[in-house]
Amino acid sequence: MEGKLMDNIAEGASVSHSKVTVVGVGQVGMACAFSLITQHVASEVALVDVMEDKLKGEVMDLQHGLAFVKGVTIRGDKDYKVTAGSKVCIITAGARQKDGESRLNLVKRNVAIFKSIVPELVKYSPDTILMVVSNPVDILTYVTWKLSGLPRHRVIGSGTNLDTARFRFLIGEKLNIAPSSVHGYIIGEHGDSSVPLWSSTSVAGVSLSALQPDLGKKSDKVDWQQVQTDLVDVAYNIIKLKGYTSWAIGLSVSALTTTVLRNQNAVFAVSTLAKNYHGIEQEVFLSLPCVLMQHGVGSVIKQILSEDEKAQLQKSATTLWEIQKDLDL
Amino acid sequence: MEGKLMDNIAEGASVSHSKVTVVGVGQVGMACAFSLITQHVASEVALVDVMEDKLKGEVMDLQHGLAFVKGVTIRGDKDYKVTAGSKVCIITAGARQKDGESRLNLVKRNVAIFKSIVPELVKYSPDTILMVVSNPVDILTYVTWKLSGLPRHRVIGSGTNLDTARFRFLIGEKLNIAPSSVHGYIIGEHGDSSVPLWSSTSVAGVSLSALQPDLGKKSDKVDWQQVQTDLVDVAYNIIKLKGYTSWAIGLSVSALTTTVLRNQNAVFAVSTLAKNYHGIEQEVFLSLPCVLMQHGVGSVIKQILSEDEKAQLQKSATTLWEIQKDLDL
Amino acid sequence: MEGKLMDNIAEGASVSHSKVTVVGVGQVGMACAFSLITQHVASEVALVDVMEDKLKGEVMDLQHGLAFVKGVTIRGDKDYKVTAGSKVCIITAGARQKDGESRLNLVKRNVAIFKSIVPELVKYSPDTILMVVSNPVDILTYVTWKLSGLPRHRVIGSGTNLDTARFRFLIGEKLNIAPSSVHGYIIGEHGDSSVPLWSSTSVAGVSLSALQPDLGKKSDKVDWQQVQTDLVDVAYNIIKLKGYTSWAIGLSVSALTTTVLRNQNAVFAVSTLAKNYHGIEQEVFLSLPCVLMQHGVGSVIKQILSEDEKAQLQKSATTLWEIQKDLDL
Amino acid sequence: MEGKLMDNIAEGASVSHSKVTVVGVGQVGMACAFSLITQHVASEVALVDVMEDKLKGEVMDLQHGLAFVKGVTIRGDKDYKVTAGSKVCIITAGARQKDGESRLNLVKRNVAIFKSIVPELVKYSPDTILMVVSNPVDILTYVTWKLSGLPRHRVIGSGTNLDTARFRFLIGEKLNIAPSSVHGYIIGEHGDSSVPLWSSTSVAGVSLSALQPDLGKKSDKVDWQQVQTDLVDVAYNIIKLKGYTSWAIGLSVSALTTTVLRNQNAVFAVSTLAKNYHGIEQEVFLSLPCVLMQHGVGSVIKQILSEDEKAQLQKSATTLWEIQKDLDL
Repeated sequence: MEGKLMDNIAEGASVSHSKVTVVGVGQVGMACAFSLITQHVASEVALVDVMEDKLKGEVMDLQHGLAFVKGVTIRGDKDYKVTAGSKVCIITAGARQKDGESRLNLVKRNVAIFKSIVPELVKYSPDTILMVVSNPVDILTYVTWKLSGLPRHRVIGSGTNLDTARFRFLIGEKLNIAPSSVHGYIIGEHGDSSVPLWSSTSVAGVSLSALQPDLGKKSDKVDWQQVQTDLVDVAYNIIKLKGYTSWAIGLSVSALTTTVLRNQNAVFAVSTLAKNYHGIEQEVFLSLPCVLMQHGVGSVIKQILSEDEKAQLQKSATTLWEIQKDLDL
Repeated sequence: MEGKLMDNIAEGASVSHSKVTVVGVGQVGMACAFSLITQHVASEVALVDVMEDKLKGEVMDLQHGLAFVKGVTIRGDKDYKVTAGSKVCIITAGARQKDGESRLNLVKRNVAIFKSIVPELVKYSPDTILMVVSNPVDILTYVTWKLSGLPRHRVIGSGTNLDTARFRFLIGEKLNIAPSSVHGYIIGEHGDSSVPLWSSTSVAGVSLSALQPDLGKKSDKVDWQQVQTDLVDVAYNIIKLKGYTSWAIGLSVSALTTTVLRNQNAVFAVSTLAKNYHGIEQEVFLSLPCVLMQHGVGSVIKQILSEDEKAQLQKSATTLWEIQKDLDL
Repeated sequence: MEGKLMDNIAEGASVSHSKVTVVGVGQVGMACAFSLITQHVASEVALVDVMEDKLKGEVMDLQHGLAFVKGVTIRGDKDYKVTAGSKVCIITAGARQKDGESRLNLVKRNVAIFKSIVPELVKYSPDTILMVVSNPVDILTYVTWKLSGLPRHRVIGSGTNLDTARFRFLIGEKLNIAPSSVHGYIIGEHGDSSVPLWSSTSVAGVSLSALQPDLGKKSDKVDWQQVQTDLVDVAYNIIKLKGYTSWAIGLSVSALTTTVLRNQNAVFAVSTLAKNYHGIEQEVFLSLPCVLMQHGVGSVIKQILSEDEKAQLQKSATTLWEIQKDLDL
Repeated sequence: MEGKLMDNIAEGASVSHSKVTVVGVGQVGMACAFSLITQHVASEVALVDVMEDKLKGEVMDLQHGLAFVKGVTIRGDKDYKVTAGSKVCIITAGARQKDGESRLNLVKRNVAIFKSIVPELVKYSPDTILMVVSNPVDILTYVTWKLSGLPRHRVIGSGTNLDTARFRFLIGEKLNIAPSSVHGYIIGEHGDSSVPLWSSTSVAGVSLSALQPDLGKKSDKVDWQQVQTDLVDVAYNIIKLKGYTSWAIGLSVSALTTTVLRNQNAVFAVSTLAKNYHGIEQEVFLSLPCVLMQHGVGSVIKQILSEDEKAQLQKSATTLWEIQKDLDL
């Protein structure tokens, strides 16, 4: 019928301008993919997973929504050919920690998985930016960097961008202000050891710690201490309540991807090679505020940290290096 | 600290202008809520469910993403007070069919559930539009209409809007054309008995059946028959592959909600009181193309159907009424 | 034909949920209206002007684009009936300064014009937020407040929100960073006497003046002085080059309107009743960072200013009051 | 300060992925540029014009709004170097008809102007799609095709996409239905000789001419005749009322550009090489429904036209060729 209906005068394009790959179609991967689609970030989304049935089901389910979201194509395959020409590749795949398993052992299992993912992505999209979401994200971003052979600025971990968003939301809730009007960062290692920078957190140029000097410290009795506690517990709590976290990390990744694809030069806290910043001597990835653009990390912001904050970062670096140094990469 | 930081000069608003409630935080409800948030449809989303833990976890997960999506507030509670002032209430809750359970029995169990939902929604949002997504959607839309006491135009079932989207996607795939450029409808009962209107399906004003008269019929050997088959099997296939369908129905509901909130007067196939159209005599809800606006269904389009198509609709009506007539509403 | 095509079952809605009025269809008014439409801020836009031909032409031109922008209705009339039920009313109308005319005289002519506008707006939309864009914006916001009889939080001047955007853009250009990642405010009187708050301007929590203490001061030789100069001259320069300014103010107003309609609680520098802040004693409107929400100005942020900055604000207040005290309101 | 604030680790990108050039910063060019920016179509917009002052003013005015519209960069220059790497180049420049000037003479003057534009665009963006908006659009699209040396599918005229939008709006107004739910096309020569295809115009699959057979004909007394009249007069009316048309054409061009950049395969009526369709024998450009994608026109839809409609197209072709054959290209 195609010939009766229309006269074909040009070949179809093999790759769209704003193609993005998501590896892994679990809850996190799908929240990323769905955010990219509904927020018009990508014009083509490629999904890859080894679980063929799940993959096929997710692709069909997304495709059936395309009558409601214009300007995006969706394809899925276990073969990485489908990812060719991606501008950004997002890795959400990985093993989960087993009961009683050591962190080192978990990382080793994930290294094995990443060895089957990273070289394939780079092979089909040699100019891509790699964005790592799987946990432990800082170590796996380092692993991805090593396995990819790419320059450091093209490998990003989603890191504390999500922790930072939670920080702003919790402060905003207390003050009845939109999270977008609360300025402040959580840096360092994603998870329990992350470092909230209370001293440079502000609203409309007013430093919150100027109003209350012991903000976020143990001496703080005015219940801001609760924000600090909530921040550490929050991921565990959500997992306990609903079984996993998905929506916020999906939106976090979508925001980072937009910034890269649109060459935006906006600042986000993401996991980047942290060596030589704030007295860190090891080759580890930790979240620092970075200017993100088309080539990935354009610049790292040199924040002015307290000795205590530096010490926390250095401690994380030492912990991470202890695990990384024995990996076979 | 709030007092030190700012001088409060007006009370906060208790209800946002574009508030939407989603009842049920399963995969479908959450895909609806996430679509409403990422597509900037609602400025306030209220979630309700009897499963308090799951509800709390989903609300927190969504809230942590608000630093990346401006202009929406999210609240959740098992108490319907949280829904007060909603412009649209979307019902995704309901029992699933048990092995060997009759359809009638399933409906009866859902009626019991809906008796705890619908009056509460109407109590707190007397001017709302009710949008039913739970299955069997046509019967449950009728049930909702009866339980709500609202005029017919304010009760809508998501109906064959999703079937229509799949129809357009499948045709678009074959022709290499965007689904938004394929015009055609599936009407009638959502699910196996739905009626694809091949004879009025067109691209750029060209009727596809003018190019190939036996389109969608058994005599059609040119593999368009496959589209028809795919349409019937597709929901079952996705459920087999990934366990449920979510993304496409979320986007479908988000599109319908936008149209209502923005008073758009756009045409969608949704489940509406079908009595007196196309020879239907029973008080049943079936999908017909409707003009949707702020008050719900503004008009029903009077399509010109073949005798065969009318007979299919009438058969569905009879089947539905057989179940409905014994319900205790 | 309508009767043949469809069966009408509900009355059309007389007012959309997110209706916005723009008074004045000059370059500024139209840039506001077009921003509201293309950015999906309003679901209904009403335009009012005394120049009937121009108004009719602009309305038709906008309407013909509606096939490309879903979910908005556009109406125009010289009769304020068309504005009924607006959630926000934007006033861009007003007389322009004649050669040699005193500022006081210009204001008096505009007072006369505003007397024909403001009571009409309030009459048809008693719950509206009034947003004043016409210049001199601080005085005319005061005038509007007086003429409207509304509480102070419901009358807003677009004020230094635009100056602030220019400030962030110019700094961002120098640092190669997105304006959205530069945090800093210009407050006070819109125009030549505005006060850039260099000391609290920051990127990723790093205070720029910590890096270069004489930032924005005359002793600053590192060419940041240029940003200050550019800021003062920029509006004059654009007017010299293209005859008027339009796009940036349109986007500024659209951002403010979104924040109000979506009840966002985000912080913007807008013109608000400044009495009792920073030592200001007169009943004048000046821009201060405000938390904007559905009811207008929810709170005013109490920034910590230097004595010099306070003195500049107080001087502006005195100047404005000199003009305001003789107005016949 | 940049060095103190941040550590630069990657070169900035010289060209964004979704770069679009607009040639001509008159009312039409600026409405196109502003639509591309506010609708997030392009991540980089380059403006070119010979009027340097106007150009500089427009660029500054747009840039100052960037704090409110994330993810786009704006540059302007009279040197076409600024356009390098554009995915789409939109030409809105051109001479206006002088009083008493023949159409042929106007075209000749525009050919001279296009000789200074087209080769420059192709030189700096050899893979670009060229989109012509200047009038007479069909002839100037032909001229652009000839001057560019590009294959036919990469040269598009905005053509009757705007006429079609007006057609849908006017019908929608009469029926109280959103223009997006009215399906129908105006094809042929943009302007007075355009051909509305009443016979294939439909709502929800219902052919309007089936309801009223003399639709749009002189015998039509039910005032649909008015739509036809309005369509022909509408551009003249707007020009009489406001001096020019801008918003609708800006939105039309923005929609076409999105479709190309996002590789959407959606159908629009645009000016394309019409030879060999509907009995047209000359090498002329006329609007026909085309499937637009990343490479420009992927396919031309072969609509089924009446003899009368074909005759109108052929007459336009003859008229256009009369002018084209004497051009020095």
